[in-house]
Amino acid sequence: MEHLAPLDNLVAALSRLPGIGRRTAERMAMALVQDDKGLMRILANVLLEADDGIVSCERCGSITLSGVNPCELCLRPRRDAHILCVVESPADIMKIEESGGFQGRYHALMGRLSPMHGTGAADLRVDKLLERITSEGIEEVVIALGADVESDATASYLREVLATRSVKVSRIGFGLPTGSAIEYSDASTLARAIQGRQEMS
Amino acid sequence: MEHLAPLDNLVAALSRLPGIGRRTAERMAMALVQDDKGLMRILANVLLEADDGIVSCERCGSITLSGVNPCELCLRPRRDAHILCVVESPADIMKIEESGGFQGRYHALMGRLSPMHGTGAADLRVDKLLERITSEGIEEVVIALGADVESDATASYLREVLATRSVKVSRIGFGLPTGSAIEYSDASTLARAIQGRQEMS
Repeated sequence: MEHLAPLDNLVAALSRLPGIGRRTAERMAMALVQDDKGLMRILANVLLEADDGIVSCERCGSITLSGVNPCELCLRPRRDAHILCVVESPADIMKIEESGGFQGRYHALMGRLSPMHGTGAADLRVDKLLERITSEGIEEVVIALGADVESDATASYLREVLATRSVKVSRIGFGLPTGSAIEYSDASTLARAIQGRQEMS
Repeated sequence: MEHLAPLDNLVAALSRLPGIGRRTAERMAMALVQDDKGLMRILANVLLEADDGIVSCERCGSITLSGVNPCELCLRPRRDAHILCVVESPADIMKIEESGGFQGRYHALMGRLSPMHGTGAADLRVDKLLERITSEGIEEVVIALGADVESDATASYLREVLATRSVKVSRIGFGLPTGSAIEYSDASTLARAIQGRQEMS
């Protein structure tokens, strides 16, 4: 029993999931193997189904059903078609949609500049962004990237690239997250919050 | 994009894994969908491979390759064939094997008595245990179940069932885990540790 190859392969594949360490993968694999309700085959089938049925939207880069391309968000007429929110990934689009805070269209870069991980400007969907700005008559680009060094570099790069275009470029605000206290905030968050202060009306 | 059926199905299946909540399942599903190294198909394939290639050992109940039944541990000649370690599941066998603390054979009950979950004596592999005790000439049964109420009930039940057989029945020790201090131990662990004290030679 010590080393069953199919079990080892399962553990190895599960370990590649984000946030899943070796021990967790082993526990998950054993649970799957011991499950008597067919979970192993169910999971295999939904994976194959998702692999076949979900594709990237050729326009915004988000995920969509293989028969719906451009995706539903790109086509929905009641959204503001002249404001584009630039994000790193489809997951970010889902988060922003959940927040209900944005009503325009999206554009996923599929990454951010990262010399460490070998991701350069050519690996991002920047050409497609420039093409869309022209063809869709975009008036404002909202950069919705994170608050880390690589996101900062990517935002700076985009601002530079977009400087020659007649579009307004903004970046989402940084500061205290909702519910947090000054007392427990870190120095960097506070510094950015003060820098990003807004006049009260 | 909001609700892609294949994505929802994937999240639902992943949520059924132990210790995976809805949010984690969503994060895993998005990572799979966004992965560009074919992880989704790889994972589906290893699951199908494991589902086909791994079966229950007809003798001890552990997991084994479909062509190796009884399993390798049941057949290995250099193990003590007259002492049987009774556990709840194949995962427990793996843990005990890793510990290197046991050299006999195993028997997995595939559960423990749990009126709450509708698991009665008939659902456990007790008949098979009795049959093995006779056919394999077992002299000692070591009950390696956990330190909770259901395990206690299962152990008591087994002791009762085995009382008519001429086998020695023991249960693994309870007490302080290695590395722990009295100061940080809970009352129940300490009580069991004191109750299970061993004479020093």
